[in-house]
Amino acid sequence: MALEIPEVVINRLPVYARALSDLAANGTTVVSSQALGEMLDVTPAQIRKDLRYLGRVGKQGRGYHVPTLLATLRSILGIDRTWRVALVGVGRLGQAIAEYNGFAPQGFRIVAIFDSDPKVVGTTIAGVTVQEAAGLEDWLRSNPVDIGIVAVPASAAQEVVDRLVSGGVRAILNYAPMTPLVPPGVTIRHVDPVLAMQSMTFYIK
Amino acid sequence: MALEIPEVVINRLPVYARALSDLAANGTTVVSSQALGEMLDVTPAQIRKDLRYLGRVGKQGRGYHVPTLLATLRSILGIDRTWRVALVGVGRLGQAIAEYNGFAPQGFRIVAIFDSDPKVVGTTIAGVTVQEAAGLEDWLRSNPVDIGIVAVPASAAQEVVDRLVSGGVRAILNYAPMTPLVPPGVTIRHVDPVLAMQSMTFYIK
Repeated sequence: MALEIPEVVINRLPVYARALSDLAANGTTVVSSQALGEMLDVTPAQIRKDLRYLGRVGKQGRGYHVPTLLATLRSILGIDRTWRVALVGVGRLGQAIAEYNGFAPQGFRIVAIFDSDPKVVGTTIAGVTVQEAAGLEDWLRSNPVDIGIVAVPASAAQEVVDRLVSGGVRAILNYAPMTPLVPPGVTIRHVDPVLAMQSMTFYIK
Repeated sequence: MALEIPEVVINRLPVYARALSDLAANGTTVVSSQALGEMLDVTPAQIRKDLRYLGRVGKQGRGYHVPTLLATLRSILGIDRTWRVALVGVGRLGQAIAEYNGFAPQGFRIVAIFDSDPKVVGTTIAGVTVQEAAGLEDWLRSNPVDIGIVAVPASAAQEVVDRLVSGGVRAILNYAPMTPLVPPGVTIRHVDPVLAMQSMTFYIK
């Protein structure tokens, strides 16, 4: 299963999976790279190149079989399972994350929430009781999770990431406005609106 | 000023700018690609390759002059100015965005907020009065903004994007869990935690 797929391609595959899922929901069974490209504002050549990493998923001149390609993508990306997620930090952003209704349908289940503020510890958010952050590593050792979401201030983010990693978490979604370091074998993604905005101002200035 | 810089590189430059800004704040005046790479978990070769797009910004074996490189990056990315931002949608996520204190220090000023819910129209969030979404295009025509932030449900996102574009907005930050299409000349970035999570599960499954 150790497919050699470049990280930039991996980052695009979920977008393809979402588009194919929309097509499947509409009853479309075959799609060309041209049509998929138009849906996603990507060139057909780019789509063919990316999907070639998955093996033989389309026939020359025939387009892609939507259900087959979608199943392949879901399996490769691991979208076809349920993932246990721990959220650290429930300020306003953390609360929005906890109550975001887009995670569960995609198999991401927030099973634990941690915060260091005594005012929120013990309260229930989206059906989950907030635990004292000091107990994070202990809890993780007896209740392994797949993904940690970091929604704490920048000054606390590296420490929280270190503690998640030491608790066995190998995938981290970071909302803090800094880039914490992780050891080899741990994957981190940053949800940072400022970086995203700064990557656009180049084009509009 | 039409530097030919690949989009993947543009997306990394803000991360470099942030690291250099931290170094400058600590009084560091020279940094090697090695040291910068360690800060950011990027190979020194990658950093040298990326920064070469900016022109002559370092001397072989001497490292980069932090203030000069930072100024170059800020100028190329357009980080050295103030940008006017309109936010559409103030559900829980939109509110977290409106009150996010990381935008202003980076020059991103939310000057207008729109929503279609009569319960929030007229209220004040982060010092800005929420306007009726129906008036979006009219308002934009007399009050141009640089960037539009879309924080509405997926079903409304394409329409909001179209209306921002028709109101002259050329850069859009999309929080809705779908990928709206934009015409050529308009840049869009997606802040989508599900796509980010799905791009990690490949590595942990």
